[in-house]
Amino acid sequence: MNVLDIIDKKRNNNELSKEELDFIFNGYLKGEVKDYQMSSMLMAICINGMTDQEVLDLTDIFINSGEVLDLSSVEGVKVDKHSTGGVGDKTTLVIAPIVASLGIKVPKMSGRGLGLTGGTIDKLESIPGFRVEATKEEFVKQLNDIGMIVCSQSDKLVPLDKVIYSLRDVTATVDSIPLIAVSIMSKKIASGADKILIDIKCGDGALIKDERSAKELKDLMIRIGNYYNKEVRCLISDMNTPLGVCVGNALEVVEAVELLDGKVRNNLYDLCVDIASNMVSMAKDISIIDAREEVIDAINSKKALNKFNEFVVYQGGNIDEMRISDNKLEVKTNKNGIITAIDALIVSKVSSGLGSGRKDKEDKIDYGVGVFLNKQVGDTVKDGDILCTLYYNEVKDYFNIADAFTIEEV
Amino acid sequence: MNVLDIIDKKRNNNELSKEELDFIFNGYLKGEVKDYQMSSMLMAICINGMTDQEVLDLTDIFINSGEVLDLSSVEGVKVDKHSTGGVGDKTTLVIAPIVASLGIKVPKMSGRGLGLTGGTIDKLESIPGFRVEATKEEFVKQLNDIGMIVCSQSDKLVPLDKVIYSLRDVTATVDSIPLIAVSIMSKKIASGADKILIDIKCGDGALIKDERSAKELKDLMIRIGNYYNKEVRCLISDMNTPLGVCVGNALEVVEAVELLDGKVRNNLYDLCVDIASNMVSMAKDISIIDAREEVIDAINSKKALNKFNEFVVYQGGNIDEMRISDNKLEVKTNKNGIITAIDALIVSKVSSGLGSGRKDKEDKIDYGVGVFLNKQVGDTVKDGDILCTLYYNEVKDYFNIADAFTIEEV
Repeated sequence: MNVLDIIDKKRNNNELSKEELDFIFNGYLKGEVKDYQMSSMLMAICINGMTDQEVLDLTDIFINSGEVLDLSSVEGVKVDKHSTGGVGDKTTLVIAPIVASLGIKVPKMSGRGLGLTGGTIDKLESIPGFRVEATKEEFVKQLNDIGMIVCSQSDKLVPLDKVIYSLRDVTATVDSIPLIAVSIMSKKIASGADKILIDIKCGDGALIKDERSAKELKDLMIRIGNYYNKEVRCLISDMNTPLGVCVGNALEVVEAVELLDGKVRNNLYDLCVDIASNMVSMAKDISIIDAREEVIDAINSKKALNKFNEFVVYQGGNIDEMRISDNKLEVKTNKNGIITAIDALIVSKVSSGLGSGRKDKEDKIDYGVGVFLNKQVGDTVKDGDILCTLYYNEVKDYFNIADAFTIEEV
Repeated sequence: MNVLDIIDKKRNNNELSKEELDFIFNGYLKGEVKDYQMSSMLMAICINGMTDQEVLDLTDIFINSGEVLDLSSVEGVKVDKHSTGGVGDKTTLVIAPIVASLGIKVPKMSGRGLGLTGGTIDKLESIPGFRVEATKEEFVKQLNDIGMIVCSQSDKLVPLDKVIYSLRDVTATVDSIPLIAVSIMSKKIASGADKILIDIKCGDGALIKDERSAKELKDLMIRIGNYYNKEVRCLISDMNTPLGVCVGNALEVVEAVELLDGKVRNNLYDLCVDIASNMVSMAKDISIIDAREEVIDAINSKKALNKFNEFVVYQGGNIDEMRISDNKLEVKTNKNGIITAIDALIVSKVSSGLGSGRKDKEDKIDYGVGVFLNKQVGDTVKDGDILCTLYYNEVKDYFNIADAFTIEEV
């Protein structure tokens, strides 16, 4: 077998065998296939796509490139959750304690943020003392002890994903439905859960811009799940508008806590209830309506909030010491009207520019900065009203946050 | 401008502006764009193609990446020739002296061989003492002195082609009509000739396998020529069968000399007369029929042979010292019938396996080895007849030469 023949075959839109996929992908992991050859291959995949068989084969190759977590010693049904990434997306911090408080195991590995969308791990690290690393043994023990864990992705799981993702990131080959499906599903399957909920973000502030692609990704991930006998449900949720009112690491933790404390009723609340209800419905094999009732009760009764606090303490975090920056700038409008849109992409650029995100892997995050949306879509505003509040220490990049708000004057 | 946005644009099959092409291609030459980014871009070009405007813009970017040869101090019409590469293709050695002997200037830069097809420069280096390097001043002086020169491509001309070609070679992105057209035409235009003849090889033994692609390449190169006010003619010639009866460096020089001495009448003779007639017709602005008469007279009168000898001596070569290996193996048939095909690709693999070609840039060539075809397509053979003779020193790779001959038994 020859790497050039394999690239050429995909270039000419012919189906690759599992042996051929294995030869080039594992060859790349071993350093035998060069960066420039792999990127040529990835571009051919981006343009010509992959057949279902190729996707299943490649997922298997990804999974078997590293360890597979064995959670058989954890009692009960294990349900995992993944989001394709959005602005202000702190759903994991909300739904994991809700679902765990209902007696379901939630084993969750998360990533750090790169680019404009933050990572759950960064958000948790804004809590002083919080440990994001766990060994296999600690992972299993914590699940048995308190029913949930959120820790950083182990390097031993799916090492192929790590090297391929890094290359895609710098070669304009991120945006490929089959490659996204393989990347997500290989990690979810290697993480050992029985059932998986995927939240596919769709809109201007997300990787997936249109409904058709979101639907395609959904179908593909469900097919991969079926192949591995894992129940997979996918929600397609809007990502034109930021989720909730807080963007930035510590700010997002605050909003998650307030939601669990029954103080939040916005698009974040609706999505969290949707996701959690689907996870509970899958785990307990009950209807969405019954699951929804349990979820809302877990919030109202503070069971979920108690679980969240238990989880933070278990992983060493001291939430009382978490700090939001004291420097704040209130951004006011000079218009009278109704807010018809808040551009998620602009908000994330502003927040990232204040220091809440990374542009390069080496960048340090400023946990206490970010954006608080005083007004939301549908709100009426008048001249002099505060649209949003910026929490800052130093301004690294400046974007005009007022551009994010579309106000129809009345 | 951002390299990822440019790659993404081509990936989505949108037309790139000249500024965008310049940014990524010259960025690559300067080392600012990485190998893996350029190969991703090249694959997107291979699959999605290029518009005519992109091809013209990229040709211009290639030409201006280095020096352009100024031949204004050379009197008369300058006609260049290029072949896309075939097995046994020693046409340059034949047609350059023919055309020059008719008072037309032939400024020719050639390449070395890589892969299965040999380069003209390697063939000339099989002549002891032959100098293939020339400065700009030597180039012009030799053209004025004897009307022709064949030397190796200057590194100062079209440096972009060199780096892009090397990358295409290892990323399965060689086979692209627009990239082939840009590569050939940028070098020909930078070499300073007024009129250009391109011999497009088409068939199993060539880069271009089918007539449709050959036609597409032809049209594109003529359009590029028009843009630069250069008359361009393209021939499409068969490359399923080797050209002539000799494959291997010194052996091919011998065949070229014999043709100029009036002793060869085969497919090589026909093609050389075709190419030379077109060059003469362009240069003198006369009909092909009149040009053909001059060409045949140049051979029959030995004017062309004398020009060849003058050229070899001028560049320091001593043809009497050229050596063919003494070790020969005659390959016989046990069939009775007619030869209906000789596979150029197999013959080139055999010759290359004997040491006449390079697999890597560092490989040393054995000038004295190769294949002599005792029989040609259309010949009748009987059991015991010699099909071909292998000249060898050591056998590096072995391919069964008998497989190259298709014999229909009668």
